[in-house]
Amino acid sequence: MEPGWVRDQLPAQPPEHPEPHAAVLADLDRVIVPALTQWQHPGFFGYFPANTSGPSALADLVAAGLGVQGMLWSTSPAATELETHVLDWLAQLLGLPERFRGRGVIQDTASSATLCALLAARERAAAAGAALTVVASQEAHSSVDKAVAIAGLDPGAIVRVPCDARGRLDAAALDEVLAGLDGPVFLVATVGTTSTGAVDPLEAIGGAITGRDVWLHVDGAWAGTAAVCPELRWVGEGLGAADSYVTNPHKWLLTAIDCSALWIADPTWLQRALAITPEYLRDAASASGAVIDYRDWQVGLGRRFRALKLWFVLRMIGAQGLRAHVRRHVALGEDLGARVRAHPRLELVAPVELALVCLAHRDGDAATQRLLDAVNAAPDLLATHTRMGGRLVLRVAIGGVRTEQRHVDRLWEVLARAA
Amino acid sequence: MEPGWVRDQLPAQPPEHPEPHAAVLADLDRVIVPALTQWQHPGFFGYFPANTSGPSALADLVAAGLGVQGMLWSTSPAATELETHVLDWLAQLLGLPERFRGRGVIQDTASSATLCALLAARERAAAAGAALTVVASQEAHSSVDKAVAIAGLDPGAIVRVPCDARGRLDAAALDEVLAGLDGPVFLVATVGTTSTGAVDPLEAIGGAITGRDVWLHVDGAWAGTAAVCPELRWVGEGLGAADSYVTNPHKWLLTAIDCSALWIADPTWLQRALAITPEYLRDAASASGAVIDYRDWQVGLGRRFRALKLWFVLRMIGAQGLRAHVRRHVALGEDLGARVRAHPRLELVAPVELALVCLAHRDGDAATQRLLDAVNAAPDLLATHTRMGGRLVLRVAIGGVRTEQRHVDRLWEVLARAA
Repeated sequence: MEPGWVRDQLPAQPPEHPEPHAAVLADLDRVIVPALTQWQHPGFFGYFPANTSGPSALADLVAAGLGVQGMLWSTSPAATELETHVLDWLAQLLGLPERFRGRGVIQDTASSATLCALLAARERAAAAGAALTVVASQEAHSSVDKAVAIAGLDPGAIVRVPCDARGRLDAAALDEVLAGLDGPVFLVATVGTTSTGAVDPLEAIGGAITGRDVWLHVDGAWAGTAAVCPELRWVGEGLGAADSYVTNPHKWLLTAIDCSALWIADPTWLQRALAITPEYLRDAASASGAVIDYRDWQVGLGRRFRALKLWFVLRMIGAQGLRAHVRRHVALGEDLGARVRAHPRLELVAPVELALVCLAHRDGDAATQRLLDAVNAAPDLLATHTRMGGRLVLRVAIGGVRTEQRHVDRLWEVLARAA
Repeated sequence: MEPGWVRDQLPAQPPEHPEPHAAVLADLDRVIVPALTQWQHPGFFGYFPANTSGPSALADLVAAGLGVQGMLWSTSPAATELETHVLDWLAQLLGLPERFRGRGVIQDTASSATLCALLAARERAAAAGAALTVVASQEAHSSVDKAVAIAGLDPGAIVRVPCDARGRLDAAALDEVLAGLDGPVFLVATVGTTSTGAVDPLEAIGGAITGRDVWLHVDGAWAGTAAVCPELRWVGEGLGAADSYVTNPHKWLLTAIDCSALWIADPTWLQRALAITPEYLRDAASASGAVIDYRDWQVGLGRRFRALKLWFVLRMIGAQGLRAHVRRHVALGEDLGARVRAHPRLELVAPVELALVCLAHRDGDAATQRLLDAVNAAPDLLATHTRMGGRLVLRVAIGGVRTEQRHVDRLWEVLARAA
């Protein structure tokens, strides 16, 4: 697809007269769909998955039709209460600590969730008259840098904690870093890094921050929802020490973007950071303190009814269905990992984490680039890359709603031939 | 609706097994819909409208089904190009300056748009080694305060420019304020204030900022889209001096929330403020500079395909249909305004602006409160309030998709009886 091709197919002037639905659908098929990266294709292995599903789409249709705006509890009580409720359901399914019950909110993206957590931590620090230091590992997501920039903190001032060879934050190094800092800290730990899916040692991190003025924010955007499976609950072990936690049902949990779940143990600081109440937004319910006004838990003011899609998904698919969905991908990831391990010219550059397989050609970056090019030259496959210790890495993120064994077989066929 | 009622109707435990769609729809009707404020009801006159429509809902269904994620041009070229294209169409329909062509982006809310504009202005100021001063009128939207707080500027440091008796920023006072300030300024002007719909004098503001280092951001969240009607183009007169402009199709232009249109004349500053590019997001298209990566134009990273709904609406309703929609509400507003003006016990506390009617009882706030209570006691009506010069004001924002003369007649019947 050449830049500008889509725009060239469309009239330069807006339509004056109404056109029939069929005409728009014809252009959808002719111009738009061929120029999309098909995230729902079963051969899509890039970035992280962005699951959608029938229940989610039906719920979005209901939300579009109801057309309510849940900025305040009073502007649609059910929109607020259902959101709190389904996030409590999800917290139970993931085995999250009790302190997060009743404290969930849906954000558009994990980036916004991390920004909100940072703003809350900054507010708590400011109340103590202190400046905040941000600490994160080298492998923390770029949204940490973006949040720091938005909040007006110096991006260069993020203190980086080294990682071990697998990309996990080094808890002993963290202890040293914290010992050398004065004042309050905003610490980001990651459950499932974007590069290789590495899981930071939350239990050890919890030990390192004990007795220190640290706001621990845990970013489990992709990996966190895997905890719906009891055997994968380990991804959330140690969350008891977290002040805030984000994981995205819109990645691997069948709920279409945007649905990023943020829990915040003490939302008071977030509300203090974000509540601005002009006269036209005052009402008795808010003044009573008995309700949540989610406008004070996010950047924007207006809100779509996003809880509906999580509700439809949790009910129509059920915990059993969600577990089967995740387990299928984890099994496919293990299978692909075993094939890479057994191949003489390929190697795993990191352990298979859940359903993320990171591999390289033994002959070096040029050979790995040729693997990538071969995969992406196939019209039915897509993979993306990262770097690990300077080395080019081919990432295979398995998680498509319709991805089955035969699609991984097809990927392997191309990889093995190119290798 | 008592706080907690909705949650009390729902099981405390998440569902283990899949449930049929019909069971979810039954609970939707039983628990959710009765506990919603019906923003699409034709008797909803509160806040500002939040239009939805058939074309918009159909497009949201398509977006949910396609499930693409347009963070980068390459992650779905059509999602990016259609967005730029429909915002150019909208810019033409609204008669916006040429400098905004190709420079539009869809945000979730006007609050996020204003934050982005502030971040861009802060970046431009920082490049010149200077701190930014924020200037806005007393009637500017609370999102300005929220953006200032998020960006880490001192909320108390917003310099307020007085308004005239109608709530419009006083351009002569602005000139004095600017003359007394050193360094770069972020100035917010409003086209259609939230309280009373007042339109700041953009032409005079443009004169006041000439030759000064001012980033002019114009907030036309509600009123701006009225410019689809040639006879209402005056709401956008003077936008030639603006660096950024936001107006929300999701309020009065038949496109369901969230669809807030932001144009930014020089997006370079926004990109410098927000672009963070880790290895896993690098690609050839982005590196070429020939494409837009909208992740650098917003707070979040991931993006839904929101351009689809604006495309469906513009095509299936057409410029003619949009104009008829706006004109109907403006006529209804004029009609209601005339009735208030003619009533011995009621008065308009501000001129009718487009389709927003602000009224009060001549006997004072207690009597006006009784008017509000009477309206909101009716199950088929809703109105909200504000204060103007300390005085309680009943706001009637006309703009519902199905609001007709008979619904305004019904509101008037209740108002006149209570008066």
